[in-house]
This record gives sequence, structure tokens and C-alpha cells, in this order.
Amino acid sequence: MKVGFVGLGQMGSGMAARLLATGQELTVFNRSPERMQPLVAQGAQAARSLADFADSDVVFTMLAEDQAVESVVWGEGRLLQCLRPGAVHISSSTISVALSAQLAEAHAAAGQEYISAPVFGRPDAAAAGKLFLAVAGRKELIDRLQILLDAVGQRTFIVAAEPEKANLVKLSGNFLIASVIESLGEAMALVEKGGINRHAYLELLTSSLFNIPLYKNYGALIADRKFTPPGFAAPLGQKDIRLVLAAAEALEVSLPFASILRDRFIRLAARGGEIRDWSAVGGLAAEDAGLLPKS
Amino acid sequence: MKVGFVGLGQMGSGMAARLLATGQELTVFNRSPERMQPLVAQGAQAARSLADFADSDVVFTMLAEDQAVESVVWGEGRLLQCLRPGAVHISSSTISVALSAQLAEAHAAAGQEYISAPVFGRPDAAAAGKLFLAVAGRKELIDRLQILLDAVGQRTFIVAAEPEKANLVKLSGNFLIASVIESLGEAMALVEKGGINRHAYLELLTSSLFNIPLYKNYGALIADRKFTPPGFAAPLGQKDIRLVLAAAEALEVSLPFASILRDRFIRLAARGGEIRDWSAVGGLAAEDAGLLPKS
Amino acid sequence: MKVGFVGLGQMGSGMAARLLATGQELTVFNRSPERMQPLVAQGAQAARSLADFADSDVVFTMLAEDQAVESVVWGEGRLLQCLRPGAVHISSSTISVALSAQLAEAHAAAGQEYISAPVFGRPDAAAAGKLFLAVAGRKELIDRLQILLDAVGQRTFIVAAEPEKANLVKLSGNFLIASVIESLGEAMALVEKGGINRHAYLELLTSSLFNIPLYKNYGALIADRKFTPPGFAAPLGQKDIRLVLAAAEALEVSLPFASILRDRFIRLAARGGEIRDWSAVGGLAAEDAGLLPKS
Amino acid sequence: MKVGFVGLGQMGSGMAARLLATGQELTVFNRSPERMQPLVAQGAQAARSLADFADSDVVFTMLAEDQAVESVVWGEGRLLQCLRPGAVHISSSTISVALSAQLAEAHAAAGQEYISAPVFGRPDAAAAGKLFLAVAGRKELIDRLQILLDAVGQRTFIVAAEPEKANLVKLSGNFLIASVIESLGEAMALVEKGGINRHAYLELLTSSLFNIPLYKNYGALIADRKFTPPGFAAPLGQKDIRLVLAAAEALEVSLPFASILRDRFIRLAARGGEIRDWSAVGGLAAEDAGLLPKS
Repeated sequence: MKVGFVGLGQMGSGMAARLLATGQELTVFNRSPERMQPLVAQGAQAARSLADFADSDVVFTMLAEDQAVESVVWGEGRLLQCLRPGAVHISSSTISVALSAQLAEAHAAAGQEYISAPVFGRPDAAAAGKLFLAVAGRKELIDRLQILLDAVGQRTFIVAAEPEKANLVKLSGNFLIASVIESLGEAMALVEKGGINRHAYLELLTSSLFNIPLYKNYGALIADRKFTPPGFAAPLGQKDIRLVLAAAEALEVSLPFASILRDRFIRLAARGGEIRDWSAVGGLAAEDAGLLPKS
Repeated sequence: MKVGFVGLGQMGSGMAARLLATGQELTVFNRSPERMQPLVAQGAQAARSLADFADSDVVFTMLAEDQAVESVVWGEGRLLQCLRPGAVHISSSTISVALSAQLAEAHAAAGQEYISAPVFGRPDAAAAGKLFLAVAGRKELIDRLQILLDAVGQRTFIVAAEPEKANLVKLSGNFLIASVIESLGEAMALVEKGGINRHAYLELLTSSLFNIPLYKNYGALIADRKFTPPGFAAPLGQKDIRLVLAAAEALEVSLPFASILRDRFIRLAARGGEIRDWSAVGGLAAEDAGLLPKS
Repeated sequence: MKVGFVGLGQMGSGMAARLLATGQELTVFNRSPERMQPLVAQGAQAARSLADFADSDVVFTMLAEDQAVESVVWGEGRLLQCLRPGAVHISSSTISVALSAQLAEAHAAAGQEYISAPVFGRPDAAAAGKLFLAVAGRKELIDRLQILLDAVGQRTFIVAAEPEKANLVKLSGNFLIASVIESLGEAMALVEKGGINRHAYLELLTSSLFNIPLYKNYGALIADRKFTPPGFAAPLGQKDIRLVLAAAEALEVSLPFASILRDRFIRLAARGGEIRDWSAVGGLAAEDAGLLPKS
Repeated sequence: MKVGFVGLGQMGSGMAARLLATGQELTVFNRSPERMQPLVAQGAQAARSLADFADSDVVFTMLAEDQAVESVVWGEGRLLQCLRPGAVHISSSTISVALSAQLAEAHAAAGQEYISAPVFGRPDAAAAGKLFLAVAGRKELIDRLQILLDAVGQRTFIVAAEPEKANLVKLSGNFLIASVIESLGEAMALVEKGGINRHAYLELLTSSLFNIPLYKNYGALIADRKFTPPGFAAPLGQKDIRLVLAAAEALEVSLPFASILRDRFIRLAARGGEIRDWSAVGGLAAEDAGLLPKS
């Protein structure tokens, strides 16, 4: 299979490397060309433009946001125009439900296939092929491409036939993670102001009821108050909460916790939070309690 | 050691049975005497009144709320009057930080000892001796009584020398659990209204990032919408959120998620929620979204 | 001056009638033509299409939302194409800050003028020429057209030279009104459940500190629980809160009250609220308190 | 009538002076005796202790909080013990619903009368006899004492026969005022960051829909960012929100806006807000938006 990969950020680079490592014939593309070098060194072809994906069987995209995906897909010389009939676009970006539905429609109209396959996991999981994939699209197609999904993830969950539903699941998952960050931030500010060591407290939590990497890792970031450099930047978290709220409003579901998170991220952005990890939301309760200098 | 146990609800009965099972000489007391029968059948003595604890070395209390603890401790013929000097009161109830501090002071003034040892876990964990204990008090005393703590719990975390700090930790933990319930309730309402099966969604979550009993068990209650009979009744959850907010206000820490939870529990109470499990909070998002009939 | 008016809903009809009543030569247009009849009877010309505004000096638009304004302005035979150079578009619709900025730019590029003049007041105030106008645009232009603004409003406030700033003011005002609705709804639910007559309570409030029509009128709607037929429909209120939050996120301002209102409107929408007045938000606290049947 | 007055803070001093000015025979008491001087200069008697109220027909109390009222009423040589049978205690303090109910019961048991008469208005209104009074108690008794109520207020609203209901009304009113402060704070932060002068904005609001002193005065404090010295100190506002939430929880009414306010006041307290006016809550949105230095 000829496989393409567009978007070599922290996540995309790891995923592309996994595809190479499992023997796929891979062509990569990135706006900043220097990020293609390490993969070329591992055997990938570097595309000069999206036109080089004309003979690809499958092209992954892994980009930061809706706008980036739109600019790769639509327009002169862009993916929708370049892909041959029957070729498959696998979108792993965390994008809006609405855009994913539009992509499904546009690819179908062009005689192409579209699978939505957003991922859970941070860059280290991507590099290790340990992502979890929420996948939606035609079942036979997903089955046929399982080998590619297995290259990047440790497990695939087939969510639905309609691709945009995988995006809803992904956004809801990021909402759950952000809720963990906020709740830990509040609890730690409380116990610390009550005179309890926050690292010891975290040890208690994660040795008992909350014994998973999610609580351990985010808890450590909050207890260490180490929010730079970002593993997942705050503006991306803000974007995800905006998208989950937009999807929820369209579906007429009110999400009080997500509304709190929205306000938290905006506040972070207004005070220089754009260079911090999204776990910096977990520092705001301490700031309000007077435990941390105001950012 | 002569051990006493006051309060044989779902949690206390399990804990008392564990003390018996590990060979302690146990005397039990409960306001409704019929709950003493099963333990007497297993070898416990039934106290006729609190006066029967006059020669106890250690007395556990495991009661529903501040008022119940106050009525057991203070007053004519109550614990503070009955216990001999040097005897130890181990309080495992989920009570306010303020009351725990008062108990510490009162027992000290009476020449008695006081340890705060609230527990994490539901009734099945209590019966199996699998609770987690957050313990605070004099270190040497805790060490000396470790055998009793090991009888009821799988692990003891020593939090601080000041007993009330264990209560703060316990309340903060219940806040974290309630946050899990609410966030799952919101996420499930969202994906269900988006056309995704909520049991399949929960399977995805708990097979990937949220792979712990806490998410599995509460997620199942919410997905099944099975909120009766209560394992932990909603009014008790409401009480815990009230106590955590009171402790936070005293310490000048604002907790936006806890404020949301407070409103949720009050709403539940106003519409007949007092007979439901506290996980019924996780059904309110679905109700607001029109997925559930009005409670 | 040849004046045009597009959009003859409850608000627009009143405003157009005022322009007629003060002697303007008026041409009107509405998608549903039957709404033009009463104005024609009062002396207006009925346009057959937007092309009939080719010789207008000034054209008002008063439409329900962004999409309606966009479809009137952009495209073949639409306002941007039809207006002659130098003609003025006065937009009184409650639209997004972003769209208003786009309109300013588009009209300038076409050699036309653009004033943003959103209004405060309900239909009865429009019919009486008693609206308040928040106006932004070129100062000399506003001065020149003051006679038209005076026809529809009792007072004009010049906000800024940049038209979109008037829209920000308008949206912030609707946020303040919605906050009044919610706060009254909460207070009335509280005192009613405490055994106090809610009409007597409202009388107390509006005879003392809250002695303005805003509190009297919305208070009466909430106390009467009379939310149909809508004077200002809930989906329009929901739209305004969405727009104010979008503007606030773009400016990096977090608005906790607006987030609560957003959740309230979504909840209303999910349970059939689209046919109610936006003051129905003020019934939700009573509903949650068990005072009202669930909608 | 022999009238007593206990509590000569900013509010109480003004009220007592009004009683004198309308010809009442007045005896005053204050913990810090120097505050009695100005009233003695105007003709009042200074009590040396509460025992001096033994022959009073009516005693007003106007104190800062529950604890102060409790310490004046209960105990050796306190009001409950000193007042003669048939004497009337008029409580104008903003206290909890629960305490007011206790006072009613205690005075009845002692053969004394109790009226709850909390007031709306700031110190200048108290000095001018322009307060609004929410009064509850026995109707005939209130009628008989109307002359005293008229001395301190411009209007009396009789709320109910049960005294504590007046306190519920008072607390709900302070909640409404705090909601005005917060909503104005959010709106002003928004428009200011959007480039609009906040004083001009306030002028627009209060010349149109929000044309009452409440919006003008609090709006000016927020626009001026002048939060010291306090007219009504933030800790008192925080106390009132705590009391309204406690009353609401007891009645099973959830108040989302009040929960936001609670978090705001706590945050203010944690960062040195105790010396500011409660309108400082209206500065937090600006602070979060990066418009104000961190408090």
C-alpha cells in the first residue's frame, strides 16, 4: 500500500515513524520541510507538494485545528483535488464534528473514501505506537486498513459508520481529561492550604482510587507546577473545549463543567497562558487561593 | 486489645466483621440493635449502652454525619464521659474538618487519645478489608494500632499529626469522585445525543485512559441509569460537598467544580433524589438534554 | 432623502412606521410580502426586490440573525451589489461583532457607507419611537442622519467610529438583561419556596431598589409564569448569549454569568423552549426547586 | 415610648439619629463606647450595659452578623434576660434565616415580642431616613410601631407574620444586588477590552434601560475601580451570600448565580479583599482579562 502522511508535529512525527517501522511505503509532507528530514532518514519519501499524493492509496492527516485541515483539503492543488478515486483519507486531527461531516460529504462526492480516526495519547505514546484510536467510517474499509491503525495504536475502537461521531467521542474524551485536570487543581489547592503536602497527597490518590497514568501524570504536572514547555499547549485545549461546547450546543446538551473549563482557558489565555501546557488550568485554583503568584 | 465499634451501617458492619475475622476481642453498639445480631453470631459482644466501652482500649466510630457523631460523643453517658484515660477513639466517619478538630481537643482535655481515620471504598470493599485509610494523629499511636487499621483496610496513608487533616483529605477525595460522576454524566449525555451507544462509549473509555474501577463502576451506574437502591445515598454526597465547601471557605479556597456539584445535589434533593445513589447526579445532564424523563 | 427598510418583523415594522410618521419617503422590503401591506397603507412603497434600493440614499436592515443579514447583503442582486456609491447601510440587527466588521469592510470597498445602529427596547418601544440606539460609524455621517435615528429612537448614544463596537455594546446589554432575568428567577424561586408570595415580593423589589421597567416587566413575566407567546423568543436570546461569548473569547474575557446563561438557554431549547419568551430562563430555578412541573 | 438602640456602626448610627430627630426618647449602646458620643450630643442617653434597657418598650439591634446578635441576646445580663415582658426587640441586622427563627422562638418563650426589620440602603440612606424596610412579625404590633419604622425608612413592606421571612427577603435582595455588581463587572471588562470607554458605556446603560441609583452607583465604583474605603465591606457581602446559600440549601433551591458569587467573594478574601468594598467583586472579570494588575 502506498501511504501518505500530512502533518509532522509532535504527534504526527511519531505516528509516521510507526508506519515506517511496520514496513509501510510512506510519503510524508509538512509545511515546514525540515520536519520531514528525520523520517526521510528512516526511509520515507518527502513530498514536494500535495500533488505527490496522487497515486497514494491512503493519506493520513494529523494537523492542529480545523483551519489547517481545511487549507490542506480544499483548494487548487489540495487533497480533495489530488487524491484519485477510491483513495482513502484518514483524518486523525482533533477537529470539529461539523468539519468532519463536511469532509465525509466532500470525499464521497469526489468518489474518495474518508475515515475519521482521532487518537488518545500524548507524544510519547504516539512514538511508541501506544495510542488509542476512536475510529468511524465504513466497517469494511476500516477492517481493510486495520494494519495501518495497528501500526499507530495499541487498540482501535470502532465507534460508528458516520465519521464525525469519532470526533465527538474524541472531543468528549478531551473534556473528561480537562475535567480531571481542573478537579485535581481544586483538590490540591484545598489540601495544600490546609497544610498537607501536595506530592504526598497525590501519592495517596494515585496509590488508591485514582491509580492510572492520567491522574499520575497530570497530578505530577500540577503538584510540580511545571507548565512549560507544553506537551499539549493550552490554546489547543481551549480549542477542544470550544469544539465540544459547539457540538453540545448543536445537539442541545448543556455541560456545566465544560463551561467552567471554557472560562478557565480564556482566563489563562488572557494572562499569557498560550505558551503553557493545558494542565496550567490546574494551577488557577492555587492562584485564586493566594498560593501562587498571579500569572 | 479490647476493641469497641459504634455504628453498624453498611460500612461499619463490614469493618467490624473484619476486626472480628482478624481475631480482635470486639464489642459493638448500634442505635438499632437488630444490626448487632450478625456480628454477635460471629463472636462479638453486644453493648447495651456506651457505658459498656468503659474498659475498651480502642473504640471505632463509623456514623453518617456530624450530628450522629456529636450525639455519641458528648453528653451524659456518652463516649467522652465513658472512655477511660489513655483509651483511643478512632473516628472513621466522614465528618467536618471543624468537628474533627473539636474532637481532638475534647479527647485531649479528657486525657484520651483521638485518631481520625476516614476510609475510601464502598460497602463491598469494607466487607473485604480492602478500604484505603487516610489517617492522622500521633505517629507512635498510629503505629501501635496498625494491626487494627490493617484489619479494615488494604493500605494506610498517614496524612499528618493533626487529626482533622485526614478529614480534609477524605472530603477532597469525595469531591474528586463526585467530579468523576458529573463529568461522566455530561460526556455520556453528549455522545448519546450524538447517536453513540453509551455502554460502548463507556467500554472505550475504561479500556483506554480511564481503566480503573472508579470510572467503570460509576460509569456503569450512569449508563444503566440505575440509581436505586443507593450504595451511597445522595443526601450523604450532598453533605460531603457541603462540608468540603465549608472547609474551603474557611481556608479561602474557591472550588468552581464543587459549586456546580452543590447545585446538582440540591436540585436532586428538591425532586425526590433522597432515595437515590449519589451517582444520580450523573443523570441530570441527560435529563436536561431531554434524554431522560423528568425526575 | 430616499430611505429603504429591509426586515419587517415585530421590531422592524414599528421602526419603519416611525420613519413614515416623521415624513420620510420610504420603500420597504420583506421576504414574506404580506408584512409590507400595513406600511404601504401608511404611504410606503413596496419593493419587489433589493434592486429597487438602487437609488436609495439610506437603507436600514433589521433582521433576526447573522445568516439573514448575510443573505441580504452578499450575492447576485443583493444589497452590496445594488446600492449606489455613497449610499448608507444602517444595520440595526443584533448581529455578531465579526460580521459587523466584515460589513464595514465590504461596504467601504464598494464605495458605500456603513453605520451600525442596534437598538434596545421591545416591540412596543419600537412602535412608539422610544428605542435607545447604540450607534457607531463615521461621526459626520451619523450627525447627517440624526433625523432618521431620532425618528426611531428616543436617544442615540454614539459609541465609536468602528461600527462593530456598537454591536459589542448591544450584545453586552442583552447579556445584562439576561442576567436580570436569571437573578430574578433564582430570587423568586427562593422566596416562594420560603413561603412568600412572589407577586408581593416583586412589588417590594420594584418599589424600592429595582424601580425600573426592566425589573417590573421581566419580573412580572416570571411571577406570572407566562412565557408564551414570546415577545423576544428564547432562540434569539440563546443566539445573543452565543455571540457575546464568542466576542468575549476573541477578546480573551471570561464571563462566568454568561456561561451559566448559555447552559440555561441550551437546556430550555432541549426541552421545547423554542416557542417561549427568553424570560422562560427565569423559570428554570423554580423548576429545579420542584415548584414548577418540568418542561 | 422608651426606645433603645444597640449597634452604632455606619448604618446603626444613622438610624438612631433619625429616631432622635423624630422625637423619640432614645437610649443607645455600643461595644466601643466612643461611637455613642455624637448621639448623646444630640440628646440620647448612653447605656452602660444592656441592663439599662430593662424599662425599654422597644429595642432595635443593628449588628454586623449572627455572632454579634447572639452575643447581645443570649447569656447573663443580655437582652433576653433584661427585657421586660411585652417589650419588643426589632432586629434590623442582616442575619441568617435560622437565627431569626430562633430569636422569634426565644422571645416568645420569654413573653417578649420580636419583629424582624432588615433594611435596604447604604449609610447615606440610613442617615437620611430613606431606607426601605422588609418587615415581618405580628401585624398589630408592626402597625403600633409604624412611627418608629417611618423614622428610619421611607417605606415599610410587610412581608409575613413569621419574622424570619423578612430575613429571607433581605438576603435575596443582597443576592440581587451582588448579581448586578458581577454582571456589570463582566460587561465592563468585555466592552473595555473591545476598545470602549467604560465610563461612556456606563452613561449609556444608566441613561437608558438601567436608569436607577443601584446601577449608577455600583457602576461608578466599578468604572472608577475605587474599592476602598468600603461602604459595605467585602466580608459582609461574602457573609450574605453564604447565608442566602444556606437558606437556599435548607429550602432545596439551587442558585447558580449565587454559587458564582460565592466563589468570587472567596477569591477576593484570599487575596486581601477584606479591606475593600463588596463591589470589588466587579473588578475580578477585568483582572482575569488582564486589564487590571493582580490584586
